Formats: sequence, C-alpha cells, structure tokens
Amino acid sequence: MKDLSAGTEPVTGVYLSTTIDLASRYLSPGETRIRLLRPEDVEDPAAVQFALAWRPADDAFSAYPNLKLVSSIAAGVDSITNCPSLPAGAAVVRVRDEAQASRMAAFAAWQVVWHHRRMGELMGYAAEGRWQRAASPEPFHEWTVGILGYGLMGRTVARGLAALGYPVIAACRSAAESAPGIEVIGGEGAMQEVARRSKVLINLLPLTEATRDVLNAEFFAQMPKGAVLIQLGRGEHLVDDDLLAALDSGHLSSASLDVFRAEPLPEGHPYWSHPAITITPHTASDTTPEEVIRQLADAVQDVMAGRRPAHLVDPAAGY
Amino acid sequence: MKDLSAGTEPVTGVYLSTTIDLASRYLSPGETRIRLLRPEDVEDPAAVQFALAWRPADDAFSAYPNLKLVSSIAAGVDSITNCPSLPAGAAVVRVRDEAQASRMAAFAAWQVVWHHRRMGELMGYAAEGRWQRAASPEPFHEWTVGILGYGLMGRTVARGLAALGYPVIAACRSAAESAPGIEVIGGEGAMQEVARRSKVLINLLPLTEATRDVLNAEFFAQMPKGAVLIQLGRGEHLVDDDLLAALDSGHLSSASLDVFRAEPLPEGHPYWSHPAITITPHTASDTTPEEVIRQLADAVQDVMAGRRPAHLVDPAAGY
Repeated sequence: MKDLSAGTEPVTGVYLSTTIDLASRYLSPGETRIRLLRPEDVEDPAAVQFALAWRPADDAFSAYPNLKLVSSIAAGVDSITNCPSLPAGAAVVRVRDEAQASRMAAFAAWQVVWHHRRMGELMGYAAEGRWQRAASPEPFHEWTVGILGYGLMGRTVARGLAALGYPVIAACRSAAESAPGIEVIGGEGAMQEVARRSKVLINLLPLTEATRDVLNAEFFAQMPKGAVLIQLGRGEHLVDDDLLAALDSGHLSSASLDVFRAEPLPEGHPYWSHPAITITPHTASDTTPEEVIRQLADAVQDVMAGRRPAHLVDPAAGY
Repeated sequence: MKDLSAGTEPVTGVYLSTTIDLASRYLSPGETRIRLLRPEDVEDPAAVQFALAWRPADDAFSAYPNLKLVSSIAAGVDSITNCPSLPAGAAVVRVRDEAQASRMAAFAAWQVVWHHRRMGELMGYAAEGRWQRAASPEPFHEWTVGILGYGLMGRTVARGLAALGYPVIAACRSAAESAPGIEVIGGEGAMQEVARRSKVLINLLPLTEATRDVLNAEFFAQMPKGAVLIQLGRGEHLVDDDLLAALDSGHLSSASLDVFRAEPLPEGHPYWSHPAITITPHTASDTTPEEVIRQLADAVQDVMAGRRPAHLVDPAAGY
C-alpha cells in the first residue's frame, strides 16, 4: 500500500469516552497518518481535528473548536449523534467490518441453535453425568428466524442462518431484494409482520429515536406464543419490564441478551437469575482495535483531503 | 401423490434391533404400502420381505429366508453391513435426508462456535452473576474447520460453516469440486492434510473397515497444537485413550463428543468428568420416524417392482 501521507505530519485526534479507557486499547503504532491523545495530554485543543469516541460526556466535544470528524469504535453511533456538544459541522463515521459481521452471524447462529436444540438443557444433563436427550427438535419450518435490522450485519446473519436450514425473514426500511432462503419485508408494518411470523427474533437495529423502546409489550404480544428473543442491538431497544412480563406469562419462552441499558448489567438485576434468560456481556461481536484504527486513519485522510469518508453516518437517519 | 400400490396387500417387514424399541417409534399409520411387525408377532417368517434394523443381533436375519431389503433408520449402516446373518442377496438402504443434514449442520456450527467463542466459559460466568468477557476471539483465518466425510451431511455442514465466515477444508475420497469458501482435498493423504491444517476437525465419516479407529494418536499428532475435535461420526472411529492422552498433554485443547463406542456412555467413564470434553447423547441429528418410514416404503416398493432403490448402499464401500 502506498503511504499517501508520507512526509506529512500525523493528524492529531483525541480519545473521548466515559466508559472505556480507549487509550489503552486503541493504539496507533505503525499508523503514521494519525496520532491520538488522551484529553489530559492535549496541549493545544485547536490542533485536535478528530475524535475517537464511545459514550462521550455531554460536553466532551466542547473543548475542541476544530473537530472535523468523529468516529465510533463500532457500528453503533447513537452515543455520538445524541451527544449535545457534537459540533454540527463534524462528520460522524462508524466502523463497517465484514469480519465483525461474520462474528455476529456465528454468535447469532449459536444462540438460535442454543434455543432450538435446547442445548442448555443438554449441558445440564451432561454436567450431572446423565445420558438424557432433550425433546426432539421441532422441524425447521416451525423455526422461522426474524431479523430486525438489515444492514451489513443483518444480511450476514441472515445468510448464515439460511445456510443452516432456517427460514429467514427480515424487516428492512429501505428496499432490499430477497435472497435464497431469505424473505425481505419492507414498508409500513414490516416489523410487525416479522414479529407475527418469527419463532425466534434477532434484534440488530441501530439505536435511533425511531427504534428506542421498540421491543415492548405491544411488540411481544404480536409474536407467536413460545417465541424467543435474541437481543444483539442496544439495551435501549428493549423495555426490560415488558420482557420479564412476557417471559413470566409464558408468552415468550426464552431470551438471549447481549446488550443492556446499563452495562455492566448491575448486580441483583432480575435478568441475572431468570431461568429463561441467557446473558452474555456485550460480547457478540467487536471490531478489532487494529481495524478501528485503520478505518479511522482512512477516514481522517479522506476528510483532510476534502473527500467523503467511506462510512459516513446520515445524521437524519441516525446510522 | 399417486398410490401406486392401491388395491394391493401391504408388504410385510420386521423390526430388528438390540438397542432401540423400534416398534414404539417407527410406526406406519397411513403408510398402506408396508406393515411392520415385532419379531415375536411374526407368524410366518417366510412372508417377511424386509427389515428395519439398527444394531441387530448377530443372528437377527437368520429366521427370515425371503428378506429382499434391509433399511437402517439413519445414514449409518455399519451395524447392518457388519451383521454376520445379513443375507448376501438383500439390498441394504440407508436414509438420506436433507432436513437431517441441516440439523447436523446447525449442531456442528453450534459446537464450533462453542469452542471458538468460549461460550462454556461465558455461560459459567453468567451462572455466577459475573459480567466477565472471555478472551478476544481469534480471527476466522486462524479457525479453519476441517471436515472428514463429504457426503450429503459433510457438504451441508461445510456450506453452513462457510456462510458463518469460517474457512472450510474437507477430505473427500471421490473427486468433488471446491465451492465458495470450501476447499475440497482428494486423493492419497487427504485426511492427513486436513488434520494438519484444521484448528477444529469435524468427523462425519461413515464407519467402515477403512475408517475404524481413524481418530488415533498418530492422527492427533498431525493436528496443530490447541486444535479441537468435534466427533459426530461413530464411536468406533475414535480411540478413546488416544483422545484422553492428547487432551491431557495439551496437544488438543478440547473436544465435543456426540457418539461413543458404548451408548449410553457408561457411568464413571472418564469422558463424563473431563473438563475439556463436551458430551451430548447421540443427538446431533436424527431423521424423523415419519421420514424413515416414508423412505422405507419407497424402497420396498422399488425392490418389489425390480427397481434399484434410491439410497442403496454399496457393499464394497460400506456406505
């Protein structure tokens, strides 16, 4: 690869997060196009041209008058686009990573099979030294997987599950063509149709004002009795009390949750001890730090050269 | 579907198994082409023209002088083809079932992700109410999945794992073309090459004289350090002591076993308590009884009409 910035100074940026020590994880050795500083190490705030951010403080961006670009460390940008101090003129980019989408697909498939084949029950028998099968698995045609969110990750998850034999339906805001084994439903009421027809529903939506609290009692009521929720989007999509009520009434049979309104999930939260809930610690799919830094340096280079960066967020859509 | 045997008597067959009460599971209501009897209910052994068999006794077939067809209840036929009393002239058929192959693919994918993403470790943390991630997953290119056995099931498993992002290599005795994301290796030494290059090896071989004890110390020694075994073939493929030695030396990191030399796996067997072994009770993928009966009736009809049944076993190959 040619180093297009050879001979030029690296562009200066700042780490901004209230929840993650970004500086210890997202280093840029060998990436000569950018250099990243902790806020306390910035001597000249006017020299800071970009930020790498995750759940920044409300006033995080205020100190830097010349911010041209803010990058997330993942596909989600809601904590950036919702930040009151985000400068109106700054481009916001997110990470778009095919390997990450595949990790998400493998993780989602694991969760679907976990519920479909009652693997938790089998693991329990094995731990007791019991040779005991679970109930015969229901046929695939009774295990339609519904997907909310049909971007790079949703499509990759859909292809993976279709290849394993599951019928897949996906709700898509913009027009998208169906693929072999995948039925894409668009337009008004698409999410409701997916809810009605899904034995297992995988949430991969971005968090926007339109999707906040979307997994609520009304939504669950449309899902068939005995359905399963796999929550891989954002904690704020899910109304926690409504999920607990749906599980406790038996309307939903089980759920896998990887994301939560408060992370880490607080000690004593009812999710921890609920027998129908499988918890993982927001670990379904990260992008590697190396990939984040590479995409960030590409975006910085584009913005400094007056080009549109590759994974620019549409402020109106919020993703 | 036309009922080609309308007006004719059903053909009589017998259930033959030492390990499963076939008569309680494989019924033929609505299937007017055949009727199946327990051995003790057979009044005229000469009238029995076919058998549905699974691990038959050594002399199981001797009582029936006019057997034309023996069907397994699954893809495996080793317990039938190895039975000393199997009449030389009887056709042996197995079940070939795309839905079963998909169930196998989903189960195999679950096992791969279980090891790759350290899901057992995560489940342990969750059970303790701990918000704790596992080590970052190694990239897909370090998790090549090797597949031994590339028939209907091997191909379906390969496609599923490739769709989830895993590089797949498969050993195939007969020539087979590589597919997107799947490299098929044929000829002399194919299994050894797959062993050398696989981070995780899935065994789906049929059991024949050529494959008995194939998963042994010599084979494991060729696998890379830290590799994983997923054993979905037959118990007799695996030399148990060699697996235990490979795990205890740390050469293999973990294994998932669904099939065993003795089933149920005996109480007190070292596998039960081994921390690196995940046990499931021969449950990866069954064919439904309805599908077995449908394929059996088709095969009986073919044989009675002098046609070659669809899923005839080659006695020389043993599958």
